[in-house]
Amino acid sequence: MTTARIALDVMGGDHAPRAVLEGALMALDSFEPVTPERLLLVGPEELIREQWSALGGSPEVGFLDAPETIGMGEKPAVALRAKPNASIPVAMGAVKAGAAGAVVSMGNTGAMVGAATMILRTLPGVRRPGIAVTIGFTPSPITVVDMGANTAPRATDLVEYAVMASAFQAAVLGMPEPRVGLLNIGEEDEKGTALTKEARALLAEAPISFIGNVEPSELFQGKTDVLVTDGFTGNVVLKLVEGFSEFLIPRVMGAAAEHGTPVAPEAIGGLVQSMSYSAYGGALLLGVNGVVIIGHGRSDATAVSNAVRVAAQTLDGGVNERVVAALAAGGA
Amino acid sequence: MTTARIALDVMGGDHAPRAVLEGALMALDSFEPVTPERLLLVGPEELIREQWSALGGSPEVGFLDAPETIGMGEKPAVALRAKPNASIPVAMGAVKAGAAGAVVSMGNTGAMVGAATMILRTLPGVRRPGIAVTIGFTPSPITVVDMGANTAPRATDLVEYAVMASAFQAAVLGMPEPRVGLLNIGEEDEKGTALTKEARALLAEAPISFIGNVEPSELFQGKTDVLVTDGFTGNVVLKLVEGFSEFLIPRVMGAAAEHGTPVAPEAIGGLVQSMSYSAYGGALLLGVNGVVIIGHGRSDATAVSNAVRVAAQTLDGGVNERVVAALAAGGA
Repeated sequence: MTTARIALDVMGGDHAPRAVLEGALMALDSFEPVTPERLLLVGPEELIREQWSALGGSPEVGFLDAPETIGMGEKPAVALRAKPNASIPVAMGAVKAGAAGAVVSMGNTGAMVGAATMILRTLPGVRRPGIAVTIGFTPSPITVVDMGANTAPRATDLVEYAVMASAFQAAVLGMPEPRVGLLNIGEEDEKGTALTKEARALLAEAPISFIGNVEPSELFQGKTDVLVTDGFTGNVVLKLVEGFSEFLIPRVMGAAAEHGTPVAPEAIGGLVQSMSYSAYGGALLLGVNGVVIIGHGRSDATAVSNAVRVAAQTLDGGVNERVVAALAAGGA
Repeated sequence: MTTARIALDVMGGDHAPRAVLEGALMALDSFEPVTPERLLLVGPEELIREQWSALGGSPEVGFLDAPETIGMGEKPAVALRAKPNASIPVAMGAVKAGAAGAVVSMGNTGAMVGAATMILRTLPGVRRPGIAVTIGFTPSPITVVDMGANTAPRATDLVEYAVMASAFQAAVLGMPEPRVGLLNIGEEDEKGTALTKEARALLAEAPISFIGNVEPSELFQGKTDVLVTDGFTGNVVLKLVEGFSEFLIPRVMGAAAEHGTPVAPEAIGGLVQSMSYSAYGGALLLGVNGVVIIGHGRSDATAVSNAVRVAAQTLDGGVNERVVAALAAGGA
């Protein structure tokens, strides 16, 4: 078990730095593998030392100075060129230099993917990284990949995503042989696009438990553990589920209230919480030479703490080592 | 106002012929523009005459003999070659010959698209037809196109879909200047795929009210009246919404019941009904030389009657005439 450090971008996200620092405190309180010695807080050092101390944070955490910050709306490529000392590239640099094993940020997704790809490079056998998100409110957890890193993938990229997400499910979620499905618009082989047809044939030959096409409606039926798709469709699925639950739950509550049988908000609090992005623990950028977790920009402290937990679990589960071994054994 | 006939495929769908015939009766009872003289029942003539009469159906409807039937699971191209006398191609032939203006079927979607394209041909100015579905449970109705006819569209196809769906919204839903959005994974111009980037530029020049990119979560916020996308993504959206509501509503009900504040099923009956495919009134195949409505295979009599209603409205609203005029005026 590695105890590599986790570089946490204190300046990332809509509620930074406060929500990030509070999330770090929560992670230290709640998750045993997250120790102060493992946490490396990245940002304007003086500012974060002061705020961390004001919150009563442990003095045993590390600090890494990054005087610049990349905003949520900045164009990733431009921002990364203009701000080499921003918290995102500095955190990636810490992993590159061996001072940390993971980066966690609630910041600019494009900047995270760009910095990780340029600074950490991809793992041996991986052409393009993919973003994986584990949805936990379904009958069993589903890891969907790619959620938007790669909107024009090759079929071989989808095979790499399948192998990587399988390694993650095995190492972190304790599923030794996760079932892998290909998101498609029908069950039959010939359904879908040129990409899905080619990917389907390649996935059937890959060293994974491939179950074939999975239709979107089947996501909620516990049929598969890993779902692979292109980054455009994956991002549509993620955002549609988020937006639709925010629309539908109030409608059901409203209909119940109108009928004279109102539902107390606390009755559905657990359900709403389980569906919220804050329970996801952030997205995992699979395929780069380091553990990279990208949280939702809207993350609160709970979401930050879950992202830090997933970083520790991914490091300690040796996910990348498993990925490299699986791909070397003929995974893609 | 045209009073062209509506050819109804009595053999299409999981509950044919009974649900189709009952749906025809409902349409006659409920919708003024649907008269017995306008209905043309297509299928094995002796069988459907007998059943129609047993249900007390008006003797003034027409019958068109089609001794063969294409099953839901059959491969469209193969089935259309092998069964020229099946109800789907016979109904299309009636439109081609001028004996009807519309075809309505709950049958094999691929066979409907294939037969419509081959027999009716596309409208002047249209390269490939697209499937439009109007979602009615959102704050205002949204017509999404393409829902699966064309999984590898060109950017110009999306412009044609936008023009056609705008004509439909104007003629049938009474929205003179429907707002058109492009489904994308971000607001910014540079987001998405090569297709969305090219389509965005072309849509901005088209004679429609283009509002730019619309994110999946914004579907439920009344931001747009028409949403264009490729057929793969559109089909994913449709099936995801269907599957997610079937998953989520029982979860909310269950949580309320566990909390001791159960919700009576009748409280949410209206909501569930509004979200069901049977309220959609079927999908409209836009871009072929005739009105073609494809219902859900699971359609009950209500869904069938709504599909017949939409066929009458689309005919009477002169949607195809508007499409041809708009495209000739520089629509794509």
